[in-house]
Amino acid sequence: MNTVAKEGQDKRRVVIVGGGFGGLKAVAALRRENVAITLIDRRNHHLFQPLLYQVATAALSPAQIAQPIRAILKRQRNVSVVLDEVVGVDTAQRSVQTRSGARFGYDELILATGASHAYFGHDEWQESAPGLKSLDDATALRRRILDAFERAELSDNAAERDALLTFCVVGGGPTGVEMAGAIAELAHRTLVHEFRRIDTRKARVILIEAGPRVLAAMPESLSAKARQGLERLGVTVCIHTAVTDCNATGVQVGAEHIDCRTIVWAAGVRASPVGAWLGSGVALDRAGRVKVNPDLSVPGLPSVFVIGDAAAVVMPSGKPVPGVAPAAKQQGRYIAGLIARRVRGQAPPAAFHYIDQGNLATVGRGEAVCDLGWLKLSGLPAWLFWCLIHVFFLIDFRNRVSVAADWIWSFVTDGRTARLITEGEHQTG
Amino acid sequence: MNTVAKEGQDKRRVVIVGGGFGGLKAVAALRRENVAITLIDRRNHHLFQPLLYQVATAALSPAQIAQPIRAILKRQRNVSVVLDEVVGVDTAQRSVQTRSGARFGYDELILATGASHAYFGHDEWQESAPGLKSLDDATALRRRILDAFERAELSDNAAERDALLTFCVVGGGPTGVEMAGAIAELAHRTLVHEFRRIDTRKARVILIEAGPRVLAAMPESLSAKARQGLERLGVTVCIHTAVTDCNATGVQVGAEHIDCRTIVWAAGVRASPVGAWLGSGVALDRAGRVKVNPDLSVPGLPSVFVIGDAAAVVMPSGKPVPGVAPAAKQQGRYIAGLIARRVRGQAPPAAFHYIDQGNLATVGRGEAVCDLGWLKLSGLPAWLFWCLIHVFFLIDFRNRVSVAADWIWSFVTDGRTARLITEGEHQTG
Repeated sequence: MNTVAKEGQDKRRVVIVGGGFGGLKAVAALRRENVAITLIDRRNHHLFQPLLYQVATAALSPAQIAQPIRAILKRQRNVSVVLDEVVGVDTAQRSVQTRSGARFGYDELILATGASHAYFGHDEWQESAPGLKSLDDATALRRRILDAFERAELSDNAAERDALLTFCVVGGGPTGVEMAGAIAELAHRTLVHEFRRIDTRKARVILIEAGPRVLAAMPESLSAKARQGLERLGVTVCIHTAVTDCNATGVQVGAEHIDCRTIVWAAGVRASPVGAWLGSGVALDRAGRVKVNPDLSVPGLPSVFVIGDAAAVVMPSGKPVPGVAPAAKQQGRYIAGLIARRVRGQAPPAAFHYIDQGNLATVGRGEAVCDLGWLKLSGLPAWLFWCLIHVFFLIDFRNRVSVAADWIWSFVTDGRTARLITEGEHQTG
Repeated sequence: MNTVAKEGQDKRRVVIVGGGFGGLKAVAALRRENVAITLIDRRNHHLFQPLLYQVATAALSPAQIAQPIRAILKRQRNVSVVLDEVVGVDTAQRSVQTRSGARFGYDELILATGASHAYFGHDEWQESAPGLKSLDDATALRRRILDAFERAELSDNAAERDALLTFCVVGGGPTGVEMAGAIAELAHRTLVHEFRRIDTRKARVILIEAGPRVLAAMPESLSAKARQGLERLGVTVCIHTAVTDCNATGVQVGAEHIDCRTIVWAAGVRASPVGAWLGSGVALDRAGRVKVNPDLSVPGLPSVFVIGDAAAVVMPSGKPVPGVAPAAKQQGRYIAGLIARRVRGQAPPAAFHYIDQGNLATVGRGEAVCDLGWLKLSGLPAWLFWCLIHVFFLIDFRNRVSVAADWIWSFVTDGRTARLITEGEHQTG
């Protein structure tokens, strides 16, 4: 048993895996409790995922939407942060194993490991159609997108140039809509005048959605507004269109082949391998999420909780809890309260209840849609509201100021400030 | 012949290789001339190299010290930017070949390709002792440094922990001094309270210099001040100490072995392969720099100029021009003037004359040394002057504001804002 865990042996040991919205909220909500918390993450930073598409499209820098987990928790003395990757959970011994060989014993375990992309059984599509979940994904996509323009500028072949200037985004959810809008802005506004041989305004951005409309979680009127906003930015929106192949030459949609060199995958997610860690006795849904009890514990394992995108939570109404940041945070806070009650010997709380705070998505500069239930906004008012909410939620004050300054700057100048191609992976020719 | 070059056939064709300080200054100084400029760089960004150490030590983000070359030159219509790597120069045909297979014909060629690290014939040291020349170098070093603390926190072996908390910087020039000071600040100030098992204040930072003092280009009094400043920050300064080996276990200095896991190489540079491109007829100095004529042209090749760190320029006094940004800029401006005179059929200018504007180096927060010839500063006044100069020179206004805000913020809070470990290269265990 690792000494990190030993040091807290006199206290109740709470191990939390994952420093995302859910995990961090659970840690913070336990700050006054007499527990020894170990937070394990394979990355050293907490990521503000809703703005990841802005890193992928060069509007923000990685450090503007990420904070070192240690810095966030510096002043909370009852938590140890471990940078390591969990490889298994021993529910009989009640310990977590990590890649470095350490074991962390727990009295309560919270699994908040999130989700990654899913290719519906076509993992071979991943290479040509990368997704967007981590900072590395975002900088890799940024490199691909910027590189496509550079290669088009150098190319003497008209067909190749057109393919390089065609960008396909697969999936019409919030990420897909945001990526398509941002690529269109990059091509049709920011990069105009920077190239001498190509006209970036002629770049095609195609958003492909299998269902009947974009932003399916929104009311139909707002889906329509979002679609109009995208089309104003020059995005071609294809609904009822299922992708049948993605490869180096482009995207296949039924009988039609779209010749393109950049594909962004925003179509599906799959829960991280929590299910595999917990063994075959645990029921998963189609997306690999653990079907949890109303108190978010795993059936048969009352000390193990799964929250956020790794959990399938069904509300008493029968509606599933959506995979959004507010839901993960509410679940983190709920579990912290449950554990605090256990520590104090109090009765368990009532079942988890999700409070829907509304639904927001941005299309482009000055263009968003927002559904608060009692209020539906679109266009500039929705976008201003979206900015306000996102700046407000960015974890620390400094990042708020800096991100706000960048947004205001890019609103005024049309500039994008993080257009760097790094990592030496530039494809010439 | 590539069409990029063809388009400018009616005009004099100036090809510039390298978008650093020298190359960009030459482009800018030719903006009103009737020439067709092609600027070729293998990176898409201009880098403000003097602040690279701040990216390596997590104080600034890459995008804060880099700007897309296309964005800088957006409004200058007589220049085409090509993102490609030069692989050769055909001085007989007067053309430049790139990796993608394109050829760019020139009437005048300016080679401003800079320098990279040199290991004095021990290239095998590079893996364990990386240098600092590009953004990728800087983010790789940042990852190594931050990772060392993480691994120390996880380690149960006292000797390994000590080695992980030992940082050796080889070379006592400006980069070495800045890196050693910044790592000491990171360990002894920023990271204090963030770890639970290690005390980052006990981390050792060792600066190793083969000569008799640090900052050898400075007056002795300022070298002494810099050394005192480093020692106040907790850096161990070893002079008269030659490194005889660098490997995964540490640094060998004569009979002594320093057990460490992080080595930063700041000891030597070597000019980029300009010499090889120009063929065996061209004389190089020991560092691989091309020995140029007083007008910066290559002996025997009056249409080819070498400037910046790739050139060995000797002043009429016999003193070599130093490898610093102001020298490269002055040379770029000089060559632009020379070419403008050729275009207009005017007489060539007098030989290049370097104007020494002084010498600056920073040690840490509130601590720098500055030699303006008529004025020598150290401590806080020198540091404030250093900040002012660097903010002023950062290429565009936006970056100035943002970098200044970050510096002020980190001065007030001791925080470092870009502490991200990315790229999935985290070494566990």
